Amino acid sequence: MFEPRNARFAESVRASFDRQNFMHTLGAQVTAVEPGFVEIRLAYAAALCQQHGFFHGGVIGTLADNAAGYAAFSLMGERDSVLTVEYKMNIVAPGRGDGLVARGQVLRPGRTLTVCEAKVYVLAEGEERLCATALCTMMTLAEQADAPQQ
Amino acid sequence: MFEPRNARFAESVRASFDRQNFMHTLGAQVTAVEPGFVEIRLAYAAALCQQHGFFHGGVIGTLADNAAGYAAFSLMGERDSVLTVEYKMNIVAPGRGDGLVARGQVLRPGRTLTVCEAKVYVLAEGEERLCATALCTMMTLAEQADAPQQ
Amino acid sequence: MFEPRNARFAESVRASFDRQNFMHTLGAQVTAVEPGFVEIRLAYAAALCQQHGFFHGGVIGTLADNAAGYAAFSLMGERDSVLTVEYKMNIVAPGRGDGLVARGQVLRPGRTLTVCEAKVYVLAEGEERLCATALCTMMTLAEQADAPQQ
Amino acid sequence: MFEPRNARFAESVRASFDRQNFMHTLGAQVTAVEPGFVEIRLAYAAALCQQHGFFHGGVIGTLADNAAGYAAFSLMGERDSVLTVEYKMNIVAPGRGDGLVARGQVLRPGRTLTVCEAKVYVLAEGEERLCATALCTMMTLAEQADAPQQ
Repeated sequence: MFEPRNARFAESVRASFDRQNFMHTLGAQVTAVEPGFVEIRLAYAAALCQQHGFFHGGVIGTLADNAAGYAAFSLMGERDSVLTVEYKMNIVAPGRGDGLVARGQVLRPGRTLTVCEAKVYVLAEGEERLCATALCTMMTLAEQADAPQQ
Repeated sequence: MFEPRNARFAESVRASFDRQNFMHTLGAQVTAVEPGFVEIRLAYAAALCQQHGFFHGGVIGTLADNAAGYAAFSLMGERDSVLTVEYKMNIVAPGRGDGLVARGQVLRPGRTLTVCEAKVYVLAEGEERLCATALCTMMTLAEQADAPQQ
Repeated sequence: MFEPRNARFAESVRASFDRQNFMHTLGAQVTAVEPGFVEIRLAYAAALCQQHGFFHGGVIGTLADNAAGYAAFSLMGERDSVLTVEYKMNIVAPGRGDGLVARGQVLRPGRTLTVCEAKVYVLAEGEERLCATALCTMMTLAEQADAPQQ
Repeated sequence: MFEPRNARFAESVRASFDRQNFMHTLGAQVTAVEPGFVEIRLAYAAALCQQHGFFHGGVIGTLADNAAGYAAFSLMGERDSVLTVEYKMNIVAPGRGDGLVARGQVLRPGRTLTVCEAKVYVLAEGEERLCATALCTMMTLAEQADAPQQ
């Protein structure tokens, strides 16, 4: 649907994601990248839970924000980086399950701002159950490469 | 300003917070509790960062959500628990600093829903700099005690 | 997809909408009602515009909120009424055109809270162009009939 | 607190507001302008109401958005104009009263984006009661004068 400006957008997304220590702390992984779309997955760990043993809302929010941000990033130029301006998330079911999958999708790309949605599902008994839905605004930092300069 | 219904609201907040594994994972601590108000602090750790070595937006969002949620919880009954319905957060400056402090404040308590705001500051060079501001809706789960039954 | 609890949900939606004076002020009309879904349309009028002659953001927001609210209402009981808890809307294109069409869709119905999305399109040159997207939380006021008691 | 870049910011706000037909339709007026702050007032009219005779949520949202937008605009350059990127609003009490007053305040101005909050109060029995609170992102359209070119 969307035309990427960076021919190597998938590598760029994965490389940037990999430089985020917090994703390693959470054990999160990018499991799909398409132009304007990114999927992130996470397995259950007690260290990620709230008081009832369910995924903490902060983990759910982090995945929603990150999936949306990288969805936006996948449509940016090779030398751009992405910034979260804001997001709003509704948690619609408890994060009770064996894993989380977050899918970020660009709704409207723009030169400066890109509007995305993200949906987070809990994996339980082999099924995906909608857990949270988010609407996010991302900003392009033009010519401020995400990668460290060599 | 607000009258707590639970005489031991501060202990209840701290005890519930302490049961959240994810707060231990982040190294977060409750540093103040008043009726309708909670402060949470966090020290810098590389494990909490994004690709530029700043606090990850997910950490910032987690603190905002949690400070707001516990601010709401501080006004609930002894046997109630709290649920995040939704929140919206604007990130207004990068999370570059030695620590984070999040302050959640109830704007409007209600029997079912409580509206809160949260502000997150970065601590840098001995000063607090506004990093994020959030507007949150919390729900009371009446008579569904947060603590494990003995 | 959703099972209505009120057999006459479509009449209930139209009757309630019709009691909103502000909808008459705007010249808005309900053009479709299905279980969990409502469409509202509006024709261009100079009285609804901002300084550049485009639809005012407040008109766009009103339609988004109302379409989402009535989508939620369509799944409620005959004697319930609906209340907007909160909504968040991104305006993604200027409201330049001959009319607006807003579509509200329930994402997740609940006993107390219902989460909906709404999309608003501008009609221009015979085409619909996405103008705004919203994520909304609606509340059921149980047994507080929307209609005046006779 | 904020330093205006446009010496005639108050006139600019009032002139732009005055070019919005929809504000005339609502009977809204700017009642205060300071750098980064705008107040808008509205008197009760049946034409602005929902089914229970209270102010329609769309009217409340319109005022919140407009007060925030003009608060941001008051800090912009003489030849800039303002655009609403997005806003999120919680309605915390019904709009039952004789009038509405909306106050928009800049929280964080920026070259491209400005984050604002808005609070809307209902006037009833000589008192102001909080009705809605909003968090908004506004964008500067640099060198795209709001006023018609002569």
